[in-house]
Amino acid sequence: MENRIQLNTNLSLSRIIHGYWRLRDWNLSDQELLKLIEEILELGITSFDHADIYGNHTCEAYFGRALALKPELRKKMELISKCGIKLNTNVNPGLDVKIYDYSSEYIIQQAEASLKNLGTDHLDLLLLHRPAPFFNPEEAAKAFDQLKQSGKVLNFGVSNFSPMQFDTLQSYLDLPLATNQVEISVSCLEHFENENIEFFLKHKIKPMVWSPLAGGSLFKPETEKEHRLYSVLKEIATELDVERIDKVMYTWLLKHPVSALPIVGSQHIYRIKSAVNSLKIDMTLEQWYKIYIASKGEELP
Amino acid sequence: MENRIQLNTNLSLSRIIHGYWRLRDWNLSDQELLKLIEEILELGITSFDHADIYGNHTCEAYFGRALALKPELRKKMELISKCGIKLNTNVNPGLDVKIYDYSSEYIIQQAEASLKNLGTDHLDLLLLHRPAPFFNPEEAAKAFDQLKQSGKVLNFGVSNFSPMQFDTLQSYLDLPLATNQVEISVSCLEHFENENIEFFLKHKIKPMVWSPLAGGSLFKPETEKEHRLYSVLKEIATELDVERIDKVMYTWLLKHPVSALPIVGSQHIYRIKSAVNSLKIDMTLEQWYKIYIASKGEELP
Amino acid sequence: MENRIQLNTNLSLSRIIHGYWRLRDWNLSDQELLKLIEEILELGITSFDHADIYGNHTCEAYFGRALALKPELRKKMELISKCGIKLNTNVNPGLDVKIYDYSSEYIIQQAEASLKNLGTDHLDLLLLHRPAPFFNPEEAAKAFDQLKQSGKVLNFGVSNFSPMQFDTLQSYLDLPLATNQVEISVSCLEHFENENIEFFLKHKIKPMVWSPLAGGSLFKPETEKEHRLYSVLKEIATELDVERIDKVMYTWLLKHPVSALPIVGSQHIYRIKSAVNSLKIDMTLEQWYKIYIASKGEELP
Repeated sequence: MENRIQLNTNLSLSRIIHGYWRLRDWNLSDQELLKLIEEILELGITSFDHADIYGNHTCEAYFGRALALKPELRKKMELISKCGIKLNTNVNPGLDVKIYDYSSEYIIQQAEASLKNLGTDHLDLLLLHRPAPFFNPEEAAKAFDQLKQSGKVLNFGVSNFSPMQFDTLQSYLDLPLATNQVEISVSCLEHFENENIEFFLKHKIKPMVWSPLAGGSLFKPETEKEHRLYSVLKEIATELDVERIDKVMYTWLLKHPVSALPIVGSQHIYRIKSAVNSLKIDMTLEQWYKIYIASKGEELP
Repeated sequence: MENRIQLNTNLSLSRIIHGYWRLRDWNLSDQELLKLIEEILELGITSFDHADIYGNHTCEAYFGRALALKPELRKKMELISKCGIKLNTNVNPGLDVKIYDYSSEYIIQQAEASLKNLGTDHLDLLLLHRPAPFFNPEEAAKAFDQLKQSGKVLNFGVSNFSPMQFDTLQSYLDLPLATNQVEISVSCLEHFENENIEFFLKHKIKPMVWSPLAGGSLFKPETEKEHRLYSVLKEIATELDVERIDKVMYTWLLKHPVSALPIVGSQHIYRIKSAVNSLKIDMTLEQWYKIYIASKGEELP
Repeated sequence: MENRIQLNTNLSLSRIIHGYWRLRDWNLSDQELLKLIEEILELGITSFDHADIYGNHTCEAYFGRALALKPELRKKMELISKCGIKLNTNVNPGLDVKIYDYSSEYIIQQAEASLKNLGTDHLDLLLLHRPAPFFNPEEAAKAFDQLKQSGKVLNFGVSNFSPMQFDTLQSYLDLPLATNQVEISVSCLEHFENENIEFFLKHKIKPMVWSPLAGGSLFKPETEKEHRLYSVLKEIATELDVERIDKVMYTWLLKHPVSALPIVGSQHIYRIKSAVNSLKIDMTLEQWYKIYIASKGEELP
């Protein structure tokens, strides 16, 4: 399987992406984080997924400090961030509830904050973090236009959008949205049911995929569904002669014709290698469906 | 905020619309109704919302009698009506159940009845009242064509349609549908959830909005949801220094980028003024979301 | 009512279609089946609906043996088949679960098997049997292209697809999909609720309809819904002066502007005649809605 995916004429990402949602929990020194980044780059993973809010707005600066130790690495990587969620934490004193802000001012402000925190002069890709009930596509289009003109952001996309939400924003833009980052895993079939998978195929959108291992829930199965899935994943791991079920979960995702780009959120290089090595594994259609059926808990109609 | 909205090149409506669903309950003499109409016009409200069936087919004639007392007012107003619902009342003897009839004959017949009852030679806007399981878009297109050619109806729209229903009818028409009249209020978020809001933004459709005050249910809160909303609305009324929660509800609606046109269904001029005055009020994005969150009963994801 | 429907420029089907889902249960000799086919053709029914998997892959060969007794009949008929479901029966030894296979190889293999079993050199129409979570439209497009080029299949369609699924596959094809075969009956209103009916009207797709008599469930009503429907159907049968409720059910379906083509799955010529004769019956809009309302169990909004 190809280890890079072309999202549009200007942007290609590594098929496996590394994500920094939990970076603060890893307790790495800047030097250790730099070492991890270098090891990841050596695996062929060049795309790094961030968001302004990760770690209550601390993770991007963390990554930036590590990158500053070896700034020449920037040229070897694609940096991705997200904006739009406004947390009711110390970062926004006086804000009583979490809200979404997609005013052009806030989008631009947060993109610029990401640049500063990451220590870079451009983002390769900026995503709107979540669809919002209060959303003015004209404001987003205006922000994208300014960020593009100034060279601060090269490509734009969305996250967790439905087909109609994607279509609506797209209709206000000249450039095609590069991707929609959504949750897909053997345990989360939501986008098989809300028609996003079909929409992606129709428009040849390659989705970035968050939580591709279902947040680790299947490593210690508790619910009936988790036990069903665990048992089938173990069985197929044996059939495929792979030692761990995470490889089966990645293979299940990578085999699908939608060309998903899973985001691996681990600090452990052996886990990250599992994802990369899954690119070389194949499974049968029957194995793919056995996992799907175990997840649904019922046979196909 | 603008006090008029352009729905298409031929039609602009006042941002606040006056509606006659409950006209019969108001117990006004023709003279009193005329006085109300004149006061409303003086507020800048020029658009009047009717339907053939309101008051069991009596409200349009009621309005028509008042207008006949001062026919020159017709030129200052836009008259809107709806058709398609066939009531199983004395109006349709022998009909056992309420049905929808969107045959071209029935659409034309009811539009002509509205003209006669309102005492006018044209409607500015005619809406199909509800989507129907038995619906032939060719019949509707034929009726629209004849009514347009004869000058009896200048613009056409729909009410309570989904995106697909709107698209389907539109694909049979040469002219763009002018609007979709739907229910939206702090209490009714249905069209935030069925993708109509996104569809409106995509196609720059400005929705007329019925029941913008949730039928008055929040003035005497009973359910848990109503209490949640009431409490937040009161709090924000204080913050905005407005005396009444209806202004907060109108402001919440008017602030949204979809450019909604609320239909005020009250006979009380002070309540109608509340709506008009809300055009001058603004609220913060946080206030907007606090209301939305109170309505949903859960934080944003 | 027309007794033929043009699906596209190349393909017209008889308005009533005969279906062979349960052929094996009929216990007919080849000679008896031939006689049935001839009687059906005399009724003006020329379209015959099959699927590779019917009768665990035996029905097509059954029909083929009867047709081989009088091969000149082939020219008078349209043969329709379906593929994509892979049964976990003796036909596919080693397959543990039922899966869907829409690889181009499998589509072509199964279309060719249908040709061989039916004893014909071409199918008039081939349908993808069900939408699948693992579906690569490029594979289907490749198979359709090869089957079309070789003259083995003249037209293509789908079955049980949603609007988005239909749209997605269509976007990969040069030729228009000819139809979508779905379940509709007085008892199954699913496609009134998932927007397929609107989608069909928008794109002028005429749906083939399976289970138009709700699998016979209404002849012996058991549930509350079945009793409600039975009672209304009986009442309307009396009003229309027809002896049997199946005619009422067919008339309800045929009257709808979507131009449905019901598939009759009976071996009894008198039942098949009921369907054909329903083409001459009309019902009022009120009767149509009474049945719809009885099925929903609630009045129209």
